[in-house]
Amino acid sequence: MLRYAVVGSGAVGGFYGIRLAHAGAHVQFLLRSAADRVRAHGMVLRSPEGDLRLERPVVAADWAQLEPCDVLVVATKATANPEVVARLGVHGPRLVRPGGGVLLVQNGIGAEPDLAGAVPGREVLGGLAFLCSNLAGPGQVEHLDYGALTLAAHTEGGAPAGITPLMRAIAADLAQARTEAILDEDLIRARWRKLMWNVPFNPLSVILDAATDALVADPATVDLILTLMAEVAAAAAAEGRALPVELPEQLLAATRRMAPYETSMKRDADAGRPMEVDALLGAPLRRAERSGTAMPATRVLHDQLAFLDRRAGRAPGSPQAQSGGSWS
Amino acid sequence: MLRYAVVGSGAVGGFYGIRLAHAGAHVQFLLRSAADRVRAHGMVLRSPEGDLRLERPVVAADWAQLEPCDVLVVATKATANPEVVARLGVHGPRLVRPGGGVLLVQNGIGAEPDLAGAVPGREVLGGLAFLCSNLAGPGQVEHLDYGALTLAAHTEGGAPAGITPLMRAIAADLAQARTEAILDEDLIRARWRKLMWNVPFNPLSVILDAATDALVADPATVDLILTLMAEVAAAAAAEGRALPVELPEQLLAATRRMAPYETSMKRDADAGRPMEVDALLGAPLRRAERSGTAMPATRVLHDQLAFLDRRAGRAPGSPQAQSGGSWS
Repeated sequence: MLRYAVVGSGAVGGFYGIRLAHAGAHVQFLLRSAADRVRAHGMVLRSPEGDLRLERPVVAADWAQLEPCDVLVVATKATANPEVVARLGVHGPRLVRPGGGVLLVQNGIGAEPDLAGAVPGREVLGGLAFLCSNLAGPGQVEHLDYGALTLAAHTEGGAPAGITPLMRAIAADLAQARTEAILDEDLIRARWRKLMWNVPFNPLSVILDAATDALVADPATVDLILTLMAEVAAAAAAEGRALPVELPEQLLAATRRMAPYETSMKRDADAGRPMEVDALLGAPLRRAERSGTAMPATRVLHDQLAFLDRRAGRAPGSPQAQSGGSWS
Repeated sequence: MLRYAVVGSGAVGGFYGIRLAHAGAHVQFLLRSAADRVRAHGMVLRSPEGDLRLERPVVAADWAQLEPCDVLVVATKATANPEVVARLGVHGPRLVRPGGGVLLVQNGIGAEPDLAGAVPGREVLGGLAFLCSNLAGPGQVEHLDYGALTLAAHTEGGAPAGITPLMRAIAADLAQARTEAILDEDLIRARWRKLMWNVPFNPLSVILDAATDALVADPATVDLILTLMAEVAAAAAAEGRALPVELPEQLLAATRRMAPYETSMKRDADAGRPMEVDALLGAPLRRAERSGTAMPATRVLHDQLAFLDRRAGRAPGSPQAQSGGSWS
């Protein structure tokens, strides 16, 4: 199996890291203040598919303590990306072995180029987690539902990369860890596809203080969700990434089948943490503007969240592991 | 002076009714459960311009108790219009003297035709209150700021009516009551103009739980407010009612000068009363749809409020006097 290091060992990074480590992979977990506690008490993944426990996880308290690996998994919140890129520029070339890469498991779109610039000559992959999970405490992940990880490779310019050997190797490790991997030839299309869920559900859960089940039960919000999804589809199509016309209804149906779920953005807002406003809404809006696509309803949500974020005094940019799964 | 009857003796109807009665006009106030209490304790308008007290207001507890008048002032919430129209159909022809009319002091657009249908042969006027006031208790109005009342006449088909004798007579009475009246030749343009303020501020105050001062202080909400105002301007222009291009900035500036204000919709929401979602947003959206104008940001607010209203279990249609002034 490949050697892994996980930066951002929260509800998402912890989930995949614990599964891989439990299956026998060498996995280092970067933890900050919680490092000593996790070294002493181990890590646990509680799941309806069976609990997994790591008695002696390999824990680093700082980037400098991380040892070279094949795959550096970045599963921080998008708001931490500026700091991650800076650290990666210093430590990445030493940490990520030749032939290895950086795997960014995160929502949003367009973050990979900055990471690629920090580790020249290494592959950069995007990961899209279809996962409902929460962090109950340091090293303690609660798995609620789903878990598949879509992988796709970044290319300069954004053209589809096809399936790379590194993607196949990671998928093989995930299979050993009994976790589904979906290999996608086109990172940008995969990211737009994920945004079709995140653009409506994450902001509305915060703005309307609602879980997913309430949002899909009311005709007014269903109408609004479909409007937002249509805007995402138009922006994706303008970049040559036509999404399946039946996808909005499929996503609605899947959400109706999900257990009532508080999105990660809702959890962040409730806990006073910065929200991923720019990754989930700002970045798509800028891309749509460049392609001449209108996203007026998305713009409304962006402005509403920006107001709420500023009023709560949440400063973006502080490093945080992802706090909720990535349905998310 | 003319003889008046006020249906909906709240923060708006009470304000104008008390001023007119104090200046010597005969004014009947329709009150329901509060009728006895107001008969016993009188009415009061507390205002920075001087307090006014009515020791023995003329109070009716039911439409059947109202005596004929020249001007029936309807200042209920728009959510009560179905009931008002029904009552007006029964009592209006007896109540409103020939040559007199019904004055609808309310936000929104397009409610006058239903009223006109209920009182054939009587004039119907629209009133737009630029007023910040609250109801402190039965018969107790707190005036915060402003107070001018714009009057315009309804015509079948909606063409501008010009200035009618009844409008001039009401304006003369208001002048005696030291209250500014603005006579407008075009009811529909006046209503769109008023909506330019109400469409952004009332919904955002509820959705973002914010007073007006916070909304005009943040660049994200200012951006959103200007977007919404531009949608109102486009819908008005599509009906041949071009609004002044400088109006959005003027309204923003006026709002910045206002004392921090909770809109009437915010007060309704906080008190668990139904919100004027259809009058302020539904009606403009339907008109825009007929004229082929896009109001996508307005649609988002409509859907968000519809969700919040439904979740709170607020049933529209229960009769309520307006609870906040009409900036509003």
